[in-house]
Amino acid sequence: MVQMMKNVIIVGATGFGGLGLIEILLRHPGFRIKQIIARKDSGRTISEIFPHLAGFCDMKVSAPEEIDYSGIDLAFFSTPDRAGMTMINDFYYKHIPVIDFSGDFRFGNIDDYGVYARNKGIDELHLSPEVLESAVYGLPEKFSERIKKAKVVGNPGCFAIGIILGLLPAVEAGIINCETIICDGKSGVSGAGKNSGEANLYPQRHENINTYREGRHQHLVEIENVLNAAGNKKHGILFVPQVIPLNRGILSTIYADPEPGYDTKKLQELYSDYYKGKPFVLISGRSPNSSDVRGSNRCEIMPAVDSRTGKMFIVSVIDNLMKGQSGNAVQNANLMFGYDETTALKMPGFYP
Amino acid sequence: MVQMMKNVIIVGATGFGGLGLIEILLRHPGFRIKQIIARKDSGRTISEIFPHLAGFCDMKVSAPEEIDYSGIDLAFFSTPDRAGMTMINDFYYKHIPVIDFSGDFRFGNIDDYGVYARNKGIDELHLSPEVLESAVYGLPEKFSERIKKAKVVGNPGCFAIGIILGLLPAVEAGIINCETIICDGKSGVSGAGKNSGEANLYPQRHENINTYREGRHQHLVEIENVLNAAGNKKHGILFVPQVIPLNRGILSTIYADPEPGYDTKKLQELYSDYYKGKPFVLISGRSPNSSDVRGSNRCEIMPAVDSRTGKMFIVSVIDNLMKGQSGNAVQNANLMFGYDETTALKMPGFYP
Amino acid sequence: MVQMMKNVIIVGATGFGGLGLIEILLRHPGFRIKQIIARKDSGRTISEIFPHLAGFCDMKVSAPEEIDYSGIDLAFFSTPDRAGMTMINDFYYKHIPVIDFSGDFRFGNIDDYGVYARNKGIDELHLSPEVLESAVYGLPEKFSERIKKAKVVGNPGCFAIGIILGLLPAVEAGIINCETIICDGKSGVSGAGKNSGEANLYPQRHENINTYREGRHQHLVEIENVLNAAGNKKHGILFVPQVIPLNRGILSTIYADPEPGYDTKKLQELYSDYYKGKPFVLISGRSPNSSDVRGSNRCEIMPAVDSRTGKMFIVSVIDNLMKGQSGNAVQNANLMFGYDETTALKMPGFYP
Amino acid sequence: MVQMMKNVIIVGATGFGGLGLIEILLRHPGFRIKQIIARKDSGRTISEIFPHLAGFCDMKVSAPEEIDYSGIDLAFFSTPDRAGMTMINDFYYKHIPVIDFSGDFRFGNIDDYGVYARNKGIDELHLSPEVLESAVYGLPEKFSERIKKAKVVGNPGCFAIGIILGLLPAVEAGIINCETIICDGKSGVSGAGKNSGEANLYPQRHENINTYREGRHQHLVEIENVLNAAGNKKHGILFVPQVIPLNRGILSTIYADPEPGYDTKKLQELYSDYYKGKPFVLISGRSPNSSDVRGSNRCEIMPAVDSRTGKMFIVSVIDNLMKGQSGNAVQNANLMFGYDETTALKMPGFYP
Repeated sequence: MVQMMKNVIIVGATGFGGLGLIEILLRHPGFRIKQIIARKDSGRTISEIFPHLAGFCDMKVSAPEEIDYSGIDLAFFSTPDRAGMTMINDFYYKHIPVIDFSGDFRFGNIDDYGVYARNKGIDELHLSPEVLESAVYGLPEKFSERIKKAKVVGNPGCFAIGIILGLLPAVEAGIINCETIICDGKSGVSGAGKNSGEANLYPQRHENINTYREGRHQHLVEIENVLNAAGNKKHGILFVPQVIPLNRGILSTIYADPEPGYDTKKLQELYSDYYKGKPFVLISGRSPNSSDVRGSNRCEIMPAVDSRTGKMFIVSVIDNLMKGQSGNAVQNANLMFGYDETTALKMPGFYP
Repeated sequence: MVQMMKNVIIVGATGFGGLGLIEILLRHPGFRIKQIIARKDSGRTISEIFPHLAGFCDMKVSAPEEIDYSGIDLAFFSTPDRAGMTMINDFYYKHIPVIDFSGDFRFGNIDDYGVYARNKGIDELHLSPEVLESAVYGLPEKFSERIKKAKVVGNPGCFAIGIILGLLPAVEAGIINCETIICDGKSGVSGAGKNSGEANLYPQRHENINTYREGRHQHLVEIENVLNAAGNKKHGILFVPQVIPLNRGILSTIYADPEPGYDTKKLQELYSDYYKGKPFVLISGRSPNSSDVRGSNRCEIMPAVDSRTGKMFIVSVIDNLMKGQSGNAVQNANLMFGYDETTALKMPGFYP
Repeated sequence: MVQMMKNVIIVGATGFGGLGLIEILLRHPGFRIKQIIARKDSGRTISEIFPHLAGFCDMKVSAPEEIDYSGIDLAFFSTPDRAGMTMINDFYYKHIPVIDFSGDFRFGNIDDYGVYARNKGIDELHLSPEVLESAVYGLPEKFSERIKKAKVVGNPGCFAIGIILGLLPAVEAGIINCETIICDGKSGVSGAGKNSGEANLYPQRHENINTYREGRHQHLVEIENVLNAAGNKKHGILFVPQVIPLNRGILSTIYADPEPGYDTKKLQELYSDYYKGKPFVLISGRSPNSSDVRGSNRCEIMPAVDSRTGKMFIVSVIDNLMKGQSGNAVQNANLMFGYDETTALKMPGFYP
Repeated sequence: MVQMMKNVIIVGATGFGGLGLIEILLRHPGFRIKQIIARKDSGRTISEIFPHLAGFCDMKVSAPEEIDYSGIDLAFFSTPDRAGMTMINDFYYKHIPVIDFSGDFRFGNIDDYGVYARNKGIDELHLSPEVLESAVYGLPEKFSERIKKAKVVGNPGCFAIGIILGLLPAVEAGIINCETIICDGKSGVSGAGKNSGEANLYPQRHENINTYREGRHQHLVEIENVLNAAGNKKHGILFVPQVIPLNRGILSTIYADPEPGYDTKKLQELYSDYYKGKPFVLISGRSPNSSDVRGSNRCEIMPAVDSRTGKMFIVSVIDNLMKGQSGNAVQNANLMFGYDETTALKMPGFYP
């Protein structure tokens, strides 16, 4: 950490993603927030919008037109889908690396983006296809070498990151013996963002759990892409997402058939070996609780085989706003700038 | 409903199960609560324990030694496992029918009880094996004829009822084309009861989801028993239960392979036909919300086939304290005494 | 109850207020819902909007233009402030009685309405001043005789009803010995309604309590009006409202100085005497819990004197959507049509 | 911070208080946890008990008999009332300073302790009266000079700290013009601790608010003691505590009469001046939210005068487990060892 402080800009700074970045970067010795951008809130200070930041970060929020590119070393885009798609071009052609939180740059080609967009119900025409080609999927546990050199990083979807980390060791080892892998995902409400509409009002989300977009959630494409590129076999994913009355946290329960000979012990060894040296993945022999990773960048995974039925099941928990979003983005940024991967992220969750 | 009022006794009246019975029976035109029993709270009135009952039910709670059998037409036991096992004998031999909420009388033989008890971590020696033989599993949608004549009804487990109702049509039609059916269950905290210990304190359950007893939950035995007796094929169940920060409600997501030719439309028709005339099952084409059945005796089921992977998945929601417990028990009682099955249960949930 | 069924129309039927009416009227033997009106949701069925009503109420929602006045005996308006102000004229001049949930008809003169409107930040010009003059404040415990003959009833604000009921006996007895009465109110989130904006999203309301509109909440006017008309002394109210992470429920803690000689026992007697025969007020010697009245039309009140300081304090709890809104409205309707005041409202809360 | 690392022992390490200390001390550059003690959990590692600590703190929990006094510079006691009363003697006579979280050492004499104990319903005989005499009340904003030299610090009660900080400037300025000050307190459930019994189970605390120990909460004594010693006038406190369905956080609303001439502006100036240079008190002109201080050591205070009634009201928020407990204790420890008062505590809360 003998490098100079690097200057970052956060575009879309006043949503939960931008806020998460600010909270983490305030304790980061290698990054300095130089400008924060959000059209809707421009002119106010960030601590008017998030009063808990008062005294810690009282920067003014600027409009996109006021972006000052000079001296910027890194741009974070925590804008909604398509909102930053063309703005990112400007940074790209000015050779300023970008980490984007939306689905805009998670795919290597416009076809996959099209499926993503149709699943999410948004316009499927990509406006920066040339940037798309050089974008890197921001999963540090798998693509750290590419991320280190990346110009545009597509930070993964929150559900995607927990599910991919839960499956990578088994998929790469080729020990999944079935066509379809079942992913049953449960997410807290903050995943829907700060302006997520009346369906997410307190009275309508408390005391409620429901499934939604069963089999056609937008994170499906990236999950299948990464897994099928990683392993030798092709697997389809049936993903049924659910919202539960939790603020933060995702727990995914994943079901598949293992090759013969795999029991819980052998599976745990495989997983522990795979993630050896990965500071943010914890392979566990006890049932994971989402509260054990709340506020931390950790993904805790319990792989197991049910002796009665022979099925394997994997339980994976993350904090959707940390490892599922801002924490993972800072981990990517650390890699891109040669900082220790855990800088500003090495702290336990927050309990109770 | 020209019958005389029937007198009931509730043993274990001061837990959530007993309370649920009281709330329902207060509006039932055919049953009168004659005595309420609970060792721990004896001597107090029920409205001291549950103040919302003040003015509606202010009966004194009596100790088990004070049970007065005279004139009792029906006994509800909402006691914990094994607590009522021998007391129920007394009612049985006095020819007073019993509906029991525990697992004590859900099985036709002591071996199944043994597996149940081992899964739950309790003593596996059954103390009333002779009564066990004549006990009926209290699932009215399947066993109404037997329930009408039953002397002892084992009211099903809350997870079991949602899962069995979600699978019965497909299992009986023989259209499940795989050995293992995957049941991913999510329950609110009230399922653990009123004295469920420090793991269920507010600070430790809010903002948390976790799996537990994966593949070895005590409701597995009754689920497999009922389904395998109903269909021509044998299926094993992999059941992974989860607790979520909800008070009431269970949502189960069930995964299996269908026989070729089954799509969502055909599956929905099969389910709608199967439950025609069943007043408490609603087959739905929209994603069920647990809040849609909160406070009601309804089980809402969405059966579907994922066109991408060909898997079938079924989503089932109940209120664990109503259709999953007291509501179902009163439905059984209605059948046993010739009342309309829906008496005192025909009301929508409670929203928001 | 030998009367014919009366036909009601609900205008603004798809908010929480309208829903509450539907849930209650479904079990009311004397009212039949003839039409439900809501501009935004017109053309859909009510059970598409509130799926828990499926099978219980599947009426189509109509637009205001489609209102059919023929055969209507009573109109409920659960519209936002000012939305029904002129529509109510039409009913008024057709001699159809109206119960309105907004603040539009809670005041006997345009000046008070003006203060109300300024506190709430809405236009202060009243559009139906002539109707205002004949409107009755819908507090059945105080104005039942006027309500029975009323043509337009202004159903009270939710905070107002709990506070007024908590203070009436002391104010009328003239035993409050201070100029200013302090009312510290805490409300669940549903009070803000079904479309209450991003401040009430789950992530932003869970784990949060805050004060708001301290000393200038819009319910202040009606509280001071009713109390100062009831007693011989003039009291000012300092009302500090707070939102807590609760769905339903209001607990108000009220502080004042009593005349010498009043201790808890004497105060409880005064309150018990005052509310003798009032079916929905329970004077209690134990600390009230909002959960004891959840889902019921009850207001539970604990009056007390602190022996150390000599202050009196009164704790009052209601369900803001029941006694604080729809339940109270049906109680008014019962009075207006000669039904027993408790018809369709005589049930305990719902616990846990 | 050129001092050597200091060694601390935590007695009662496995409750929420001990956990809070561990979370903070893990990031403290001047303190090292040398031993953690808890009878109930001895023999296990702390990360078995709190799995989110895995990899961050995996120390073994020892029994009280295993306490190793050698090289210990400071002892934290986060034991329940009376559990550490005599053990603290041992540290005291070995000249090891102690910070105690219970009420045992918050009072300068046994009479006050007696009132405290009676209010709390515990034995009122103090077992270490000689230590009591030299104990210092651990409120750094008021007693920093005494704390720096203290041998035993009684860390304040959580409600007490928010209320005292909210009143000190006005009381010391002598501008409160009434005998009784009204304190309406609302607390989250974690204040009751990790083993707080069935009244605090999730189903029984969700969707509920209630008052308790009105006028006789155990924190009354310390509040009146500190305030009456600080000002020239004597004030009595009427304190009505309430529990709300929140995990962390206390909001207190305080009501009093100001001397003539005080409006909101003048009051805010008084408060801002008083707390100038106090790093953890923020005087605010906006309505405080408990979520703005969640996870931080900040106390945010809004003082105001209601222009209609002339009353003053003060809103104060803290995180009951931080400024209300562990955070404040570390702030005391920083003072005692000459560290910057904010060491390990200078971070914003955690949102959403």
